Amino acid sequence: MTRLVMKFGGTSVADISRIRHVARHVKREVGLGHEVAVLVSAMSGETNRLIELTRDVAALHDAREYDVVVSTGEQVTTGLLAMALQQEGVQARSWLGWQICVRTDGAHGAARIDGIDTAMIEERMAQGQVAVIAGFQGVGGDQRITTLGRGGTDTSAVAVAAALNADRCDIYTDVDGVYTTDPRIVEKSQKIDRIGYEEMLEMASQGAKVLQTRSVELAMVHDVRLQVLSSYLDPDSLDAEKLPGTLVCSEDEIVEQQVVSGIAYSRDEAKITLRQVPDKPGIAADIFGILADAGFNVDMIVQNITEDGKTTDITFTVGEADAERAVNVLKARAQPGEFGDIQADKNVAKISVVGIGMRSHSGVARTMFQTLAEKGINIQVISTSEIKVSVLIESEYTELAIRALHTAYGLDAD
Amino acid sequence: MTRLVMKFGGTSVADISRIRHVARHVKREVGLGHEVAVLVSAMSGETNRLIELTRDVAALHDAREYDVVVSTGEQVTTGLLAMALQQEGVQARSWLGWQICVRTDGAHGAARIDGIDTAMIEERMAQGQVAVIAGFQGVGGDQRITTLGRGGTDTSAVAVAAALNADRCDIYTDVDGVYTTDPRIVEKSQKIDRIGYEEMLEMASQGAKVLQTRSVELAMVHDVRLQVLSSYLDPDSLDAEKLPGTLVCSEDEIVEQQVVSGIAYSRDEAKITLRQVPDKPGIAADIFGILADAGFNVDMIVQNITEDGKTTDITFTVGEADAERAVNVLKARAQPGEFGDIQADKNVAKISVVGIGMRSHSGVARTMFQTLAEKGINIQVISTSEIKVSVLIESEYTELAIRALHTAYGLDAD
Repeated sequence: MTRLVMKFGGTSVADISRIRHVARHVKREVGLGHEVAVLVSAMSGETNRLIELTRDVAALHDAREYDVVVSTGEQVTTGLLAMALQQEGVQARSWLGWQICVRTDGAHGAARIDGIDTAMIEERMAQGQVAVIAGFQGVGGDQRITTLGRGGTDTSAVAVAAALNADRCDIYTDVDGVYTTDPRIVEKSQKIDRIGYEEMLEMASQGAKVLQTRSVELAMVHDVRLQVLSSYLDPDSLDAEKLPGTLVCSEDEIVEQQVVSGIAYSRDEAKITLRQVPDKPGIAADIFGILADAGFNVDMIVQNITEDGKTTDITFTVGEADAERAVNVLKARAQPGEFGDIQADKNVAKISVVGIGMRSHSGVARTMFQTLAEKGINIQVISTSEIKVSVLIESEYTELAIRALHTAYGLDAD
Repeated sequence: MTRLVMKFGGTSVADISRIRHVARHVKREVGLGHEVAVLVSAMSGETNRLIELTRDVAALHDAREYDVVVSTGEQVTTGLLAMALQQEGVQARSWLGWQICVRTDGAHGAARIDGIDTAMIEERMAQGQVAVIAGFQGVGGDQRITTLGRGGTDTSAVAVAAALNADRCDIYTDVDGVYTTDPRIVEKSQKIDRIGYEEMLEMASQGAKVLQTRSVELAMVHDVRLQVLSSYLDPDSLDAEKLPGTLVCSEDEIVEQQVVSGIAYSRDEAKITLRQVPDKPGIAADIFGILADAGFNVDMIVQNITEDGKTTDITFTVGEADAERAVNVLKARAQPGEFGDIQADKNVAKISVVGIGMRSHSGVARTMFQTLAEKGINIQVISTSEIKVSVLIESEYTELAIRALHTAYGLDAD
């Protein structure tokens, strides 16, 4: 008996005909004798409509009431899909966050799942009933509805798969898998058959938007195998033994490891540079302490000694939308003399080369720097992890850099 | 300390500006130091949109899933109104059926409320927080969402008022009170200041659509005083000591009782006549047993002996929409020989004269028959209760009959 979790996003349930299509995908798996739980998002456009209503009432509104309003989108879809399944002759029942106790913390609008009581749905699944579960929602300790934040249904799906100890979690979406890089930029990009959790995590956090970062983290922690595939496929034409798309799994399952698996990029970065920072202990701690207290997510950080040896420059990146606010916070809260000049530059892009093979292969960074140098692209900031090298470059070179790197690492399709 | 329940229907919360208007009505009562719970319907049009979605999926769908989908309309409004109240500086919190345990039976789509746990909201109300409660919804014993059927928010409001032992339940709607008859038919109809529960019940069940019948029954049982008034009134211009509209209350509160309080009518009736029914015991029981088993709501019944003394005619009324089906059910299930011919006639209207004063005044029925006779209107069926006389007439005489009766009973405004 295989136990499956299937997840369908907003575009996959955009209207009744798409919901019927989803029901046929589910029916196929049930027909193979699998136990199935399905997670659904709100019909596309619906969440935005609901958010718009809350904004019309009050720009600054109570997050608890926001969650009450916005969570209805998924509720509607669960009911409709349960009906569509019954219409296809498949036993089904909808479940909302509070009904199966998707327990979360109280961070309304961006809650994290603490646990799920699956006893009830496991009992029903054993009797052949499909559990249709509302994604994106849970309940806090005070029995109030919480939502997980944008894209949260991926996370819901992985959390349910972990709680059910499912054999696989199939993420049906509007793309047909994870690619070596953005196919809109590199025509010769290739679909990746298998990718490790850590690589996927780097790809996701570096801008590849196929899966929500949090969902990949959760899948890694609980070792939930994720199959990413297109919901537009004909349900009856699929080979259930070998589903198309990309499997996100443990490294052990990947026989032929690439040195570099993909190239990710993000244009939503801003570079902030502090000049004339006195070269003495404690100042960096103070500056990044201020930023952390104010809730900024600082990504890359570099510090250089200037020629006179008395002051340094500190450069770091934050999200583009946070740039002005970060500058203002630092100006207002830093001790006098901690830095001279401060500058923000939004005209930057971050390019990342990702691959678990890097651990055992040297020369990956060198290839990157060489390739960019050959194209005359200046590297502003570098940061590395065990399986990733990221550089910050001027924004207008983004496509050129990605294409050159894709070729240099041998990722181009024949 | 006065404890108030306020109810706002779909047109009163049709858009964000109307919801803000509602918030100002609530703020007025809170400002007077009252403890307030508010019941809201879905934004107008929203319930129909949701029902349409369920119909698109499946004409015959699971009522449990229907309730999951349709109940989201009220959920959205509760969140938005709570936000709008907070925006006005009024403490508020939304509550869904499952959160305050609006316990219902399991009749999905037409559930009845068994009880409400008000401890939580009473505690909050005592601290000055307004409870914004989703109308129309509850939970069944199996923790599934149930809905109460169309107009159910009136019933929710009365049930909450009863559970809270509220001093009054204010029903804000799109008319400014209960009238002696339909103002679209009789220009000289008058708003009634006070009307007894039983009268209101007869008026409601006879077609006056201001309040849902079930809500009036519940108010009568629990002695909840209902004030019906227009949500379009300017919240700041109201005299809180003497609200406009109509108070529905116990007879004891009505000092000057009218013999006749109002004229109600319904065009949604059909008359079914069975001819050549053998004049022997048990046949009527059989026929109406068949109809009851099939779920028909039979209203007026008359039986006449024919001249030969051997057979009778039986005439009764059902809802217009049920007429064909009732005829078919009787043809299919009645014993052979129980009746000869069967005919349905939808071209009828029921006119009812209602008043608690009838109990102590004679001649009310005679005035009715005389008035109709003078206008040449033939009475097809008569039925009476302690406080009501109803007649069935040919549909085209409806307006003429109502106007004549309104004048005859002295109800015309000066």
